[in-house]
Amino acid sequence: MADVATLVEQAREGRPRAVARLISLVEGASPQLREVMAALAPLTGGAYVVGLTGSPGVGKSTSTSAMVTAYRKAGKRVGVLAVDPSSPFSGGALLGDRVRMSEHASDPGVYIRSMATRGHLGGLAWAAPQAIRVLDAAGCEVIVVETVGVGQSEVEIAAQADTCVVLLAPGMGDGIQAAKAGILEIGDVYVVNKADRDGADATARELNHMLGLGESRGPGEWRPPIVKTVAARGEGIDEVLEALEKHRAWMDERGVLAERRRIRAAHEIETIAITALRARLADLRGDVRLSALAARVTGGELDPYAAADELVAGLTGL
Amino acid sequence: MADVATLVEQAREGRPRAVARLISLVEGASPQLREVMAALAPLTGGAYVVGLTGSPGVGKSTSTSAMVTAYRKAGKRVGVLAVDPSSPFSGGALLGDRVRMSEHASDPGVYIRSMATRGHLGGLAWAAPQAIRVLDAAGCEVIVVETVGVGQSEVEIAAQADTCVVLLAPGMGDGIQAAKAGILEIGDVYVVNKADRDGADATARELNHMLGLGESRGPGEWRPPIVKTVAARGEGIDEVLEALEKHRAWMDERGVLAERRRIRAAHEIETIAITALRARLADLRGDVRLSALAARVTGGELDPYAAADELVAGLTGL
Repeated sequence: MADVATLVEQAREGRPRAVARLISLVEGASPQLREVMAALAPLTGGAYVVGLTGSPGVGKSTSTSAMVTAYRKAGKRVGVLAVDPSSPFSGGALLGDRVRMSEHASDPGVYIRSMATRGHLGGLAWAAPQAIRVLDAAGCEVIVVETVGVGQSEVEIAAQADTCVVLLAPGMGDGIQAAKAGILEIGDVYVVNKADRDGADATARELNHMLGLGESRGPGEWRPPIVKTVAARGEGIDEVLEALEKHRAWMDERGVLAERRRIRAAHEIETIAITALRARLADLRGDVRLSALAARVTGGELDPYAAADELVAGLTGL
Repeated sequence: MADVATLVEQAREGRPRAVARLISLVEGASPQLREVMAALAPLTGGAYVVGLTGSPGVGKSTSTSAMVTAYRKAGKRVGVLAVDPSSPFSGGALLGDRVRMSEHASDPGVYIRSMATRGHLGGLAWAAPQAIRVLDAAGCEVIVVETVGVGQSEVEIAAQADTCVVLLAPGMGDGIQAAKAGILEIGDVYVVNKADRDGADATARELNHMLGLGESRGPGEWRPPIVKTVAARGEGIDEVLEALEKHRAWMDERGVLAERRRIRAAHEIETIAITALRARLADLRGDVRLSALAARVTGGELDPYAAADELVAGLTGL
């Protein structure tokens, strides 16, 4: 196996196999994980991360693909991270996406990665930011993180992007679906896809109403735009990119982008810390200290809370 | 409100309102939680905890009720903790169980408590042992913990009892259901309920085969018995209690009971510790230390793993 420095070097040059290998190293919690993360750190921060989420069937993959095409036309290197909650056991890729994405398969300026949601909570929240870091360090100027708007951790991943796009489609009672999934609060840009279908205007109006976009806002406040698209034909995609650029400029001017990134980093640090603490506690399972505390609890000498305090106090000394 | 010492005193005397109040204090993580746990500790260890689990519809509540009747005939004080995974939001009681249990409602020697599974993982694993502690300290000689054999945390709670009873019923493809739910490995005693129905013998045979009970075992090894019951008519319940008593005696002779209780206590300590650590990390969200670490990460100066290390190292100093 190539060493970490070489892999990072090759990833910087845009070699897809090196990028793939690095993502595997970080999402699999390999022994080289820390070395990889340390090597990536100084190379990150250049990418603009766009979250894209919506209920199943609104056309997320088609929209992502159309956005990739548009960004490529503008000469940008693009990374795609597609999070698939429907296959908790595969650990692998989205065949459907792959097929739809196949037009980009031979383009060296596009890197597409699918990530299955793990069986346990927190797994995705932990793994996705690491993969984003790899794509960032590999020189992707834009990273689209596509998640299904079902399940808290998927929604959170999209919400923690620099800009979050919420996708809807007409005729699915979609506003209500989106509200249920809790994705109505998180959009910086809203897209009504499949706008050639009946009810697109009604969906846009409903959305406008639900978001209170008719109400006045403070000066300098961001007013999420609603863009209509027919992603399958590439219609309206330029307008989506324009809206994203506007949001980015708005954030930049006000220091909001830097603040969002700090919040995202803080969340990432917290997730890693809790995972590490969990692992340390699990390591204690065969340890005499835990056995001794447990024996004192069964003997009625100590209550389990006091025992947990002693355990936690001893943790950093491990 | 009565102080904790008074409540514990009253619970020892068997006053149901005091028991109810104490369980509310421990399951709700009240400010008095630690005081309650410390007061209970020296009073615990006397109860024999029986876990009872099985797929929906096998007759768990009816069996629990019949067992309570039998234990009451033997003059024992009994506690019942019924865990309901079907109502994640109620935080309340099982009406169905209450109705079926109503024959015991006026008996001061029986305390029945329902507990809804919380919305998040780990909530139940954290709350159930605390409630068991209250019932134990309140002088219950036997505590039946009834959980639906669906979902890992419910199954774990039953598996962590002193003795675990797995309930099946004929004609539901039940062996396969039980195998799927992962409850076939955890039984110390198996019960085929509704044994007056067609297929009861076939279910017992299938179970016998799946458990490998026909194979020879080492001397002194526990061979889980299969008991047939018609719980609704109280048939076979004495045999269930005999099987439980045999298992308890077998465990006692070999030190298995003490070992099981130490493992249970260790698990409980670990769950409390991870909950406490999580809370401490959450407290850090507005803290300058985490903000400073996050800024160093977004600046590319530090990777998030190194930042998490610093965070964890500082945790016990809080």
